[in-house]
Amino acid sequence: MADESLFDFLHMEIVSHIYKEQQSSKEEMDNKDRAVCVSVLESMGFRVGQGLIERLTRDSPSFKDELDVMKFVCKDFWTKVFRRQVDNLRTNHQGTYVLQDNKFSLLTQLSNGKQYLDQAPKYLAFSCGIVRGALSNLGLDSVVTAEVSVMPSCKFQVVVQKL
Amino acid sequence: MADESLFDFLHMEIVSHIYKEQQSSKEEMDNKDRAVCVSVLESMGFRVGQGLIERLTRDSPSFKDELDVMKFVCKDFWTKVFRRQVDNLRTNHQGTYVLQDNKFSLLTQLSNGKQYLDQAPKYLAFSCGIVRGALSNLGLDSVVTAEVSVMPSCKFQVVVQKL
Repeated sequence: MADESLFDFLHMEIVSHIYKEQQSSKEEMDNKDRAVCVSVLESMGFRVGQGLIERLTRDSPSFKDELDVMKFVCKDFWTKVFRRQVDNLRTNHQGTYVLQDNKFSLLTQLSNGKQYLDQAPKYLAFSCGIVRGALSNLGLDSVVTAEVSVMPSCKFQVVVQKL
Repeated sequence: MADESLFDFLHMEIVSHIYKEQQSSKEEMDNKDRAVCVSVLESMGFRVGQGLIERLTRDSPSFKDELDVMKFVCKDFWTKVFRRQVDNLRTNHQGTYVLQDNKFSLLTQLSNGKQYLDQAPKYLAFSCGIVRGALSNLGLDSVVTAEVSVMPSCKFQVVVQKL
């Protein structure tokens, strides 16, 4: 129990630290400031995702295609990192994937419904980075974004970049 | 497996972020800069420790004295947070406690021996804060410091502040 909350609490602290440090010299944050925060959190997540997937795939067989990689991320990786599987994976078979998690672990503490919806992006940047880092180490260059309409449900969109 | 590494990786990222941000404007860090970093990490740990102990003691009976609290921290709390019990607890029965962990989880990844010993304090500030935060919520105001002579072994000294 506390094991999981350890990560959740630490994640909360980091988000709040990074936003505070960006805001320290100003009255109010503008969009550029917010973009800086998101980018710092996203890069942290990226490196954490790389590290995690490296351990997790140490004994795994190789993947046969892109969809196979995505399925691994939705099942094994998601379970280890976010404590449940993705509820729904959709794809247009052209490199775009939508991963829906109806009870996203980093949002469950935050709210249940539409309250604080404007705060959600703060708490998703790190996770987007984690997913992008994991995919990157599995050979897929991607852009990962997240969208929330009702917490704690969350949709991650992954667009694989073709070389 | 990845669950634990998730926290470890995130912790590494935070340490590196906080040291980088403090150093950004300078050639080299001086002792004052290092103290700022340690203090930022320690306060993060403090709040995380408060949150964790609150959950962990929700269903626990109350403690009969200071030593009882310390034993709980060394066993239950340590196991949840650092994945093992403290190996040795000593006290002078006047409010000073030494908690020795021979395989401290946040140092095992770093080194085995005396190499990088100068880097160890970076990776202990957050943990000192966690312990201080936990004790604070259990009603004990304390000063917590850590000392390493050979990694990954670590000694935490807790000095309870009498009112």
